[in-house]
Amino acid sequence: MKLKGNLVDVYTEDIYPAEVTFDRHIKSVQKLSEEQSLYILPGFIDSHIHVESSMLCPSRFAEAVIPHGTTCTISDPHEIANVMGIAGIDYMIQDTHTLKIYYTAPSCVPATPFETSGGVITADDIDYLFRTGAAVALGEVMNFPGVVTGDKDILEKIAVAHKYGKPLDGHAPGLSGEDLQKYIEKGISTDHECISLEEAREKQELGMKIMIREGSASRNMRDLCGLDYDNCFLVSDDLHAEDIIHGHIDALLRKAVSYGIDPVKAVRMVTINPAEHYRLNSGAVTPGKCADIVVVDNLSTFSVKKVFIDGKLAAENGHVLFSVNPAPLESTFSVGHKKPSDFAVRSISDTATVRVIKIIEGQLYTKAGKAVLHCENGVVLPDIDHDILKLTVVERYGHNTIGTAFVTGFTLKEGALASSVAHDSHNIICVGTSDDTITEAVNTIISMKGGIAACGNEKRFLELPVAGLMSLEPVNTVAKTHEKVQEYAHELGCTLKNPFMQLSFLALLVIPELKLSDKGLFDSQTFKFTDVIV
Amino acid sequence: MKLKGNLVDVYTEDIYPAEVTFDRHIKSVQKLSEEQSLYILPGFIDSHIHVESSMLCPSRFAEAVIPHGTTCTISDPHEIANVMGIAGIDYMIQDTHTLKIYYTAPSCVPATPFETSGGVITADDIDYLFRTGAAVALGEVMNFPGVVTGDKDILEKIAVAHKYGKPLDGHAPGLSGEDLQKYIEKGISTDHECISLEEAREKQELGMKIMIREGSASRNMRDLCGLDYDNCFLVSDDLHAEDIIHGHIDALLRKAVSYGIDPVKAVRMVTINPAEHYRLNSGAVTPGKCADIVVVDNLSTFSVKKVFIDGKLAAENGHVLFSVNPAPLESTFSVGHKKPSDFAVRSISDTATVRVIKIIEGQLYTKAGKAVLHCENGVVLPDIDHDILKLTVVERYGHNTIGTAFVTGFTLKEGALASSVAHDSHNIICVGTSDDTITEAVNTIISMKGGIAACGNEKRFLELPVAGLMSLEPVNTVAKTHEKVQEYAHELGCTLKNPFMQLSFLALLVIPELKLSDKGLFDSQTFKFTDVIV
Repeated sequence: MKLKGNLVDVYTEDIYPAEVTFDRHIKSVQKLSEEQSLYILPGFIDSHIHVESSMLCPSRFAEAVIPHGTTCTISDPHEIANVMGIAGIDYMIQDTHTLKIYYTAPSCVPATPFETSGGVITADDIDYLFRTGAAVALGEVMNFPGVVTGDKDILEKIAVAHKYGKPLDGHAPGLSGEDLQKYIEKGISTDHECISLEEAREKQELGMKIMIREGSASRNMRDLCGLDYDNCFLVSDDLHAEDIIHGHIDALLRKAVSYGIDPVKAVRMVTINPAEHYRLNSGAVTPGKCADIVVVDNLSTFSVKKVFIDGKLAAENGHVLFSVNPAPLESTFSVGHKKPSDFAVRSISDTATVRVIKIIEGQLYTKAGKAVLHCENGVVLPDIDHDILKLTVVERYGHNTIGTAFVTGFTLKEGALASSVAHDSHNIICVGTSDDTITEAVNTIISMKGGIAACGNEKRFLELPVAGLMSLEPVNTVAKTHEKVQEYAHELGCTLKNPFMQLSFLALLVIPELKLSDKGLFDSQTFKFTDVIV
Repeated sequence: MKLKGNLVDVYTEDIYPAEVTFDRHIKSVQKLSEEQSLYILPGFIDSHIHVESSMLCPSRFAEAVIPHGTTCTISDPHEIANVMGIAGIDYMIQDTHTLKIYYTAPSCVPATPFETSGGVITADDIDYLFRTGAAVALGEVMNFPGVVTGDKDILEKIAVAHKYGKPLDGHAPGLSGEDLQKYIEKGISTDHECISLEEAREKQELGMKIMIREGSASRNMRDLCGLDYDNCFLVSDDLHAEDIIHGHIDALLRKAVSYGIDPVKAVRMVTINPAEHYRLNSGAVTPGKCADIVVVDNLSTFSVKKVFIDGKLAAENGHVLFSVNPAPLESTFSVGHKKPSDFAVRSISDTATVRVIKIIEGQLYTKAGKAVLHCENGVVLPDIDHDILKLTVVERYGHNTIGTAFVTGFTLKEGALASSVAHDSHNIICVGTSDDTITEAVNTIISMKGGIAACGNEKRFLELPVAGLMSLEPVNTVAKTHEKVQEYAHELGCTLKNPFMQLSFLALLVIPELKLSDKGLFDSQTFKFTDVIV
C-alpha cells in the first residue's frame, strides 16, 4: 500500500511531502518534491481513557473513536474490575477488536474497605496480568495517601510492577512537596490530575510525564497551556458517548491548536510521547513501526480522512470499514427486588436533624450540611420543597446491604433517578422524592440488570447489560437514549446539566466531604462512617 | 546523606539551588533560595564504549573512569566474545564492580566466516544473555549488509531481542536511502557511526537516536554540531588508557560546551537521554532514582569534585575511594612457538609481483597496491628501502593457521611489531622487516600469552593476560607501558602516531580494500580471498 501526503515527522518535528509504503508495518518513507494536499500523521493514542465511562463496550467504543483517528488507547479497566475482578478485565480484552486498547492492571480495586465491591484485584492478580502480557502498566495509583504512608498492600502491588519492569501510572490530585516526592520515589511516573501550571511544573521537575486532561468530566487544557510539551501527553480520561460523537483525539488537537499550542508538539503528545513511554511499536510513521496512520486535511481542523490500523483501512471520512459484533456478558447482578420499607430512615421523634450531602454542580466533592425533617409513623420524610431528597446505595453483589441518607442539589420535584454506574464499586445508586419512587427506580435497574433510569409518571431508561456499566449498542443509540433519560430527569425537576454523572460520584468515598456507601453514610474527611441522624 | 548544590534538572532543563537527600536512592530534592558554589548532576553514562579497547579489565576501567564522573556505561563485549564466547562475557560481568557496566549481547561474533575466532555467539547464546538478565540490549548490529539482504542468522538474533523487548543498537556507517530504511525497519534504533550532519539527520528523521562519537579512534562531535540533541547521546566508543587519564565523559562535556552546545543539553546526552532509552533507573536526580550523582565546579570546565554511585562516595577530587582486586582469567592461548619458515612466502622466480596492503594513517580502510620483490632461495623478500614489509596473522585458538602478506606504511627499518589485539578475531598480528624478527615478535606474544610487543635489538612489551586484550594493571601503568612500547616502535623507524592501533585494524575484514586473516589475504571489496602473488 502506498500513501502520499505531507508527513509530520514526530522525531524532528519537520513536515515534508512523502510517499509512505506499508503492509502491516511501515516499509519505507520516500521524500517527494511537491507539496501534497493532505497530511499524514501517526495514529492517535489516548494514553489515559476509561472505556467504561463511555458506556460503550470495547468493540462499540472502537467503532466510535476510530473514525476520529484514534488507533490506540491505554485504558485502566478499574470500573469493570470493581464489578467483576479479573473476569471483567478478561471480558474487556475479549471484546477488544481493531482498536489497540492496551489495558493497565488496576491498582486500587476495591477503592476502600468501606464499601462492598463485586471484585478485588490483588497483587497476585496484577502479577498474573503482567505475566500473561494482559497489562502494559500499573493502572493509576489512586491510593496516594497509602503510598505516602507506606501502606503494605499498595507497596506490594507497586513492587510487582517493578518486578516486570512496567511503567506505573499516577493519580495524585494536588499532591505536592514532601508527599509528592514520596509518591514519585516509588517510581510512579505519570499524572493526569494537574489543574494548574504550578502543580504540573512541580511534577515535571521531578520527572513525571504530565497527562493534560480534556474529557467529559474534567477539562484542564486551558490551564496547562505553557507546559514543556515534550514531557506531556494529551488524554481524555473519561469521555461520554454524546461527546465522542463530536470527536476524540482529533477534537483535542483542534482545541490545542486553538489555544496556541504548536500543532506538531500537539501531535507528538498523542503519538510518539506516549508510544515511547509505554514502549509501543507505534506513534511514528517510520520503517518498522506498525502501520497505524491517520490522514487529515490540515493541522488546524484535523478533519480525519482515513485511518489505517496495522496497515488496514479501518475508517474513511467518518465511516468505519469494519463490522462490530459485541460480546455479550452474563449478568453479575445478585440482588432481589426491593420494597419501600427497605429505604426507611427511622426515628421515634416528630422531627429529626439529619446530615445532608450537599452536591456542587460539576464537582466530585460535596459539602456536609444539616437539615431538620418531619417524621411520620417512625420514618423520617424527605422535604421536596427544600430539596432534601432521599439518596440510597443498594448493594448488588449478593450481600444485601443498603445505605440510605439525604441529599440536596438534585431539585427533583417528583420521581427518582437511579443508576448502576456508581464509582467505584458500582452498586445501585438512586436519588428520589419518596421511598415509593426510589423503590420503583431501583427495581427498574434490578429488572434490567444494569442501566440508568428516570422514573416518574413514565419511565425512561438506558440498559447497560455489560456489568451494569456498558451497553452493547452503537454510540449514537447510547448517546440518544442517554439524552432522552436525561431530558426526563430535567422534566422531573432536576436542573443539573448532567444528573447521572453527578449521581455516580456520590458513592465515591475517597473524595470529601460527605458520601454514601452501601454500608452507610461516610465522612470522607475523617474517613469514618457517621450517623444520618445527628 | 545530604548534598547542596545548583541542581541541573534534566527534565525541565532548569538549574536551581537544592538540597538532595539520598541513601542508595534519591529520597528528596528540596529547593534552596541561595545560589550554591558547586553543581549537582546525574552520574554520567557512556552509552557506547567497548571496555576492551582501553586494554583495562572492567574493574581497572571502573577505577580509571569513575573519578571523571562516569557512573554507568553500556558496553558491547564483542572483543572478548570473539576470543572466548559466552565465557568471556561471564568474565566481564564477574570483574564488574562499583561502575555500572551494562553489557549488550554481541550480535556479530564472529564478524565473518573468513577468519578463525575463538568464540561464537549464536542466537541461542543471545537468548541466554537476555533470559538471565546479563544483557540490556542487542549489541551493535555491524552486519548491516546482512540485515539489508535478509541474512537468516542476523535476523534470528534480531528476533530474539524483540522477543525480550530489548533495544537494538546499530552500526551503519554511511548507510542511507532504501538500505537504511530496511535496516531501521528491523527495529534497530541507535547509530554511532555518523560522520556528517546530513547522515545523522537522515537517521534522526527516521527515528534513530544518534550517538555522537568522540573517542580515541574516531572523533565526530565537531561535524555533528547542530543536531537535535534531544534525540542524541554522547559516547566514546573506543577510549585508550592514555586518553582516559585526561578524561572521559567530563572531557566530552567540556568539548561540547567549547563547541557551543548548551551545557544542559550536553548533560542530557550523557544522563537522561540514554537512561530512558536503555530503561535504567538513573540519569536524573529525582526521588526514586539510584543515587548516582556527580558534583562539578561549573558547567564549562566540568571539573569533577565528587562521584556517588548508589549513594556511596566512590571518588573525590580525582581519587577513587574503593579498592580494586581484578579477577585473573585463565589464558585461552593455544598456539606453539613459530619458526621463520612458517612465515615464508614462496616463489620459484627471481622476482615476484605481490599484492600490497597500503595503510592510510588514522583510517580503518586500506588501499590495494602492488610491488615487485626479489626472491632468494625460493622465498619472496620484503623491501625495507621501499617500505614493503611482511605482515602476518597467526591463529591462536588451536587451529594452527597462518596468513602472510605484504604491507606498506609502517616504515620500520628494523625489528617487528606484534599484538594479540587484532579486530575482530584477535589472532596475533605482526608486521616486520624479516621472517626472523617476525618470529621473535610473534613468539614474544605467545610466551606472554597476550600483549603487544616491539622487538629490535631490545624488546619492549605490554602484557595483556586477559584474553590477550586486557591488562590487570591500573590505567597509569598500562598507559605508561604502552607509551614506552610505542616509543620503541618509533625508534625502529615507524612514523605512525599509533602503530598498534593501525596494526590491529589490518585483520578487520569488513572494511575495504585489502586485509589479512589467518586464512589468507582478503579482498574486502569482492569479499573473497585473493593471492599474495599476482
